[in-house]
Amino acid sequence: MGTKSEALKQFNRIAAGTAEIVPEEDLKTKLEKSISTGKPLRIKLGLDPTAPDIHLGHTVVLHKLRQFQEFGHQVVLIIGDYTGRIGDPSGKSETRKQLTEEEIEKNAATYKEQIFKVLDPDKTELRYNGEWLSRLSFADVIRLASNYTVARMLERDDFSNRFHNEEPISIHEFLYPLMQGYDSVAIEADVELGGTDQKFNLLIGRTLQREYGLEPQVALMMPILEGLDGKQKMSKSLGNYIGITESPREMYGKTMSISDDLLVRYLSLVTRFSEEEVSSIEKGLQENRLHPRDIKMQLAREIVSMYHSQEAAREAEEEFKRVFSKGQLPDSIPEFTISAEELKDNKIWLPKLLSLANMTSGTSEARRMIKQGAVKINDKKIENQDEEVEITDGMIIRVGKRKFIRIRK
Amino acid sequence: MGTKSEALKQFNRIAAGTAEIVPEEDLKTKLEKSISTGKPLRIKLGLDPTAPDIHLGHTVVLHKLRQFQEFGHQVVLIIGDYTGRIGDPSGKSETRKQLTEEEIEKNAATYKEQIFKVLDPDKTELRYNGEWLSRLSFADVIRLASNYTVARMLERDDFSNRFHNEEPISIHEFLYPLMQGYDSVAIEADVELGGTDQKFNLLIGRTLQREYGLEPQVALMMPILEGLDGKQKMSKSLGNYIGITESPREMYGKTMSISDDLLVRYLSLVTRFSEEEVSSIEKGLQENRLHPRDIKMQLAREIVSMYHSQEAAREAEEEFKRVFSKGQLPDSIPEFTISAEELKDNKIWLPKLLSLANMTSGTSEARRMIKQGAVKINDKKIENQDEEVEITDGMIIRVGKRKFIRIRK
Repeated sequence: MGTKSEALKQFNRIAAGTAEIVPEEDLKTKLEKSISTGKPLRIKLGLDPTAPDIHLGHTVVLHKLRQFQEFGHQVVLIIGDYTGRIGDPSGKSETRKQLTEEEIEKNAATYKEQIFKVLDPDKTELRYNGEWLSRLSFADVIRLASNYTVARMLERDDFSNRFHNEEPISIHEFLYPLMQGYDSVAIEADVELGGTDQKFNLLIGRTLQREYGLEPQVALMMPILEGLDGKQKMSKSLGNYIGITESPREMYGKTMSISDDLLVRYLSLVTRFSEEEVSSIEKGLQENRLHPRDIKMQLAREIVSMYHSQEAAREAEEEFKRVFSKGQLPDSIPEFTISAEELKDNKIWLPKLLSLANMTSGTSEARRMIKQGAVKINDKKIENQDEEVEITDGMIIRVGKRKFIRIRK
Repeated sequence: MGTKSEALKQFNRIAAGTAEIVPEEDLKTKLEKSISTGKPLRIKLGLDPTAPDIHLGHTVVLHKLRQFQEFGHQVVLIIGDYTGRIGDPSGKSETRKQLTEEEIEKNAATYKEQIFKVLDPDKTELRYNGEWLSRLSFADVIRLASNYTVARMLERDDFSNRFHNEEPISIHEFLYPLMQGYDSVAIEADVELGGTDQKFNLLIGRTLQREYGLEPQVALMMPILEGLDGKQKMSKSLGNYIGITESPREMYGKTMSISDDLLVRYLSLVTRFSEEEVSSIEKGLQENRLHPRDIKMQLAREIVSMYHSQEAAREAEEEFKRVFSKGQLPDSIPEFTISAEELKDNKIWLPKLLSLANMTSGTSEARRMIKQGAVKINDKKIENQDEEVEITDGMIIRVGKRKFIRIRK
């Protein structure tokens, strides 16, 4: 196959499922050059050092990175340890928590463990940006900052909103995007990946590389994955996520709870299925040759297989069928022993019990779940948000479809 | 004398002639504390490393510093060598020319030579801000920049105008005022001096010191001295200045050219005269007991004495009287030999001749001077702006009151 057609093949595979590539032409040129010289492209992904708990939403870019690796390209993951160690000196930003050396080390280890479930470690370089950022002097920072204007920085959505609402923006906040952009200079990235919400930052890297005399990187934006609710983006704080370290049972069950509309999107963005396989499934669904429930099970098996094993996927599926298809209790139910101090006349306020047993994140969520009719005690739905429950040893509480607990006293 | 009354005495002397002190109360408190502890205050002045040619306008702050020294306080001059060595990486700012190590050294030497004509070297510390700025890491810069908001920085007049006119402001430009402010942190300044146009910058120093846990400095602003024209501020580019390295004759003559209105202001801002002496002269002038011309000569003698010597002042005065009071030519007249190539039929365009002989800065200024009736050849006023002059050996050209040249061919 000629260089051009091989490059086009790679380009088509890589472009599939992306939200935007800026500019597409540069990516084609870079792929051709890489093929003709035999030199792999360097594909950058920056990792937030504070949040090592990866969920499926994060894996959208990982799967795209994996495709680059399959064509022989080099992935460079950058852990923002320098940024993490500084944190936000003004203490105002919750997303810029200051981290200790140990926390960063620990988070990096977790990242590796989780990320290599999708990526090929042999084609992945893991770098810490403190390696180059700690060497910059004040004069270097001045030079860096001279490449970007105040007006352009204020175009970034979050800055723009805050500026117009007259909420304070500290000057140092303008330096973080430049640091991230400078990472692209330091590692000589050819392509940088991110969600569509990262476009502004990815383009800064492009600008800076040009100013530092390098060939500018291509910014490749992936769509933001919807969460289990199918509406908002998948996020830990919204609770609509599947964490990639969750148990096979949780993972399988959560996947089965997504709406049919999301099926093809999930198949395309967070599995190892090829474009052809996804298209063929999509067609089957449209023509009613395939049943959404079967495909959802296939998706659930794939997800559990990736992050656990095929065996675990099979077991999770058995379990799921038993509980939901046949209405039985699961094989094993966790137990919660309630301390006598919490009881008054052997009774407890139900929201408190749910919260103590970690069935809900707190009493407010508990009351909400009761109101939605999602809480059952010994298979009987509870109607009263402020139910005072009489405790009996062995009673079974169920929240939603998949959470069970056996109370011990 | 008690601490309070001694502090009040110092305060009154220092406050005299200032444009603004922010806040006055802090200065009083600092003076009291200094008197009671015997620890001199640290009085900061930042010097621009690019412009070592000091004129009387610059000496306004120097005289105020000198008063602090007379009360035993410590002056700290800061040469912005670090800023100078960086320059403006975007290359857009003319005021931020990049300087070599040698240029900075040379400028610093010139500063010393010129400044110690007013200041007491024994109570002056000369520091280079590279000493501390070169040690700051990127993390330190982030911390520094976290203490100031984008909105507040945009309030500075020049930024504000450019922002509203949609002229680009590079992000690094926000870092220079912070560097200057950090100098106050580094040297633990108690008071910083500057012109009223420096208020914004001096207050940044105050803010930063507070953020770094220091007692904030007092910002003391001096009025901006009017130039010889009595209208615009004294500045080299406007040509309305008296440089403190100019010859006694130039200096004396230029001083004599100021309008009577400016007399008291100059006496108060750029001489060593006490407040009482100036008040008494002012009164004498108001009551017509003193003649402005005599006072102007006293001012001219004082200025020449400060920057040259009393002897030089006496000689300059003699010379001045000879030329202007008696209409005679000065003792010595510089000569200019005109090259034959410049002549056509032994004639030359007068503006070109004035420009070649350095009598004017160029042909435009020359034409303006002719139009104003300020150009004479052999004591005959020239009316035609484009006069073609026939050259005779020994002819004398006069521009304004004090510039003479003898033409040689």
